[in-house]
Amino acid sequence: MMGVGPPPHLGTTLNTITPCAACKLLRRRCAEECPFSPYFSPHEPQKFAAVHKVFGASNVSKLLMEVPDNQRADAANSLVYEANVRLRDPVYGCMGAISALQQQVQTLQAELNAVRAEIL
Amino acid sequence: MMGVGPPPHLGTTLNTITPCAACKLLRRRCAEECPFSPYFSPHEPQKFAAVHKVFGASNVSKLLMEVPDNQRADAANSLVYEANVRLRDPVYGCMGAISALQQQVQTLQAELNAVRAEIL
Repeated sequence: MMGVGPPPHLGTTLNTITPCAACKLLRRRCAEECPFSPYFSPHEPQKFAAVHKVFGASNVSKLLMEVPDNQRADAANSLVYEANVRLRDPVYGCMGAISALQQQVQTLQAELNAVRAEIL
Repeated sequence: MMGVGPPPHLGTTLNTITPCAACKLLRRRCAEECPFSPYFSPHEPQKFAAVHKVFGASNVSKLLMEVPDNQRADAANSLVYEANVRLRDPVYGCMGAISALQQQVQTLQAELNAVRAEIL
């Protein structure tokens, strides 16, 4: 639809109407080629706030750029996930969750072996 | 033992003989109050290299300072763990490991329920 959306620009197009969550938090202009804007919607500002606090903006950008284009959304989501776990558990982060799950797998495996031994 | 170790200093004492892994990588002087030196031994340089790559030095320092002193070694180790997982799996990181373990827990739980139902 013509006439809808931002007006045409000379040079760099800016996401002036809705800057992404990253540019909003960092108080900077959101350029069309902003590395964050496809992955950090202004409607979910807490996602970028979390990765910013734990990894830092430049590391998030670097980590995203290191994966293929079609996997960046997944990478961004996993960084948000990890950052939130770290904010909830600043000492153990995801390692705490992984240890607890490994323990649970061991317990379940032992129970399963015991029940199977009972049958035979 | 007197006479062993670094000579006495005026002002800041430096870990001049064995700067920690962080200061060695960052090519800076390792001060006695270095935030990294208790947790990043020069004998395991790959540990700091991993957290530096994923979180950045200043974030690691900040994350360590945010936890109580007696938990900083655990926090440093969990950051190293997370960084290594992220370097092996840049797209999913620890979230990938957690998803796989959650899946395994579900499968084992279902098997256990099935075997138990068989007994009764």
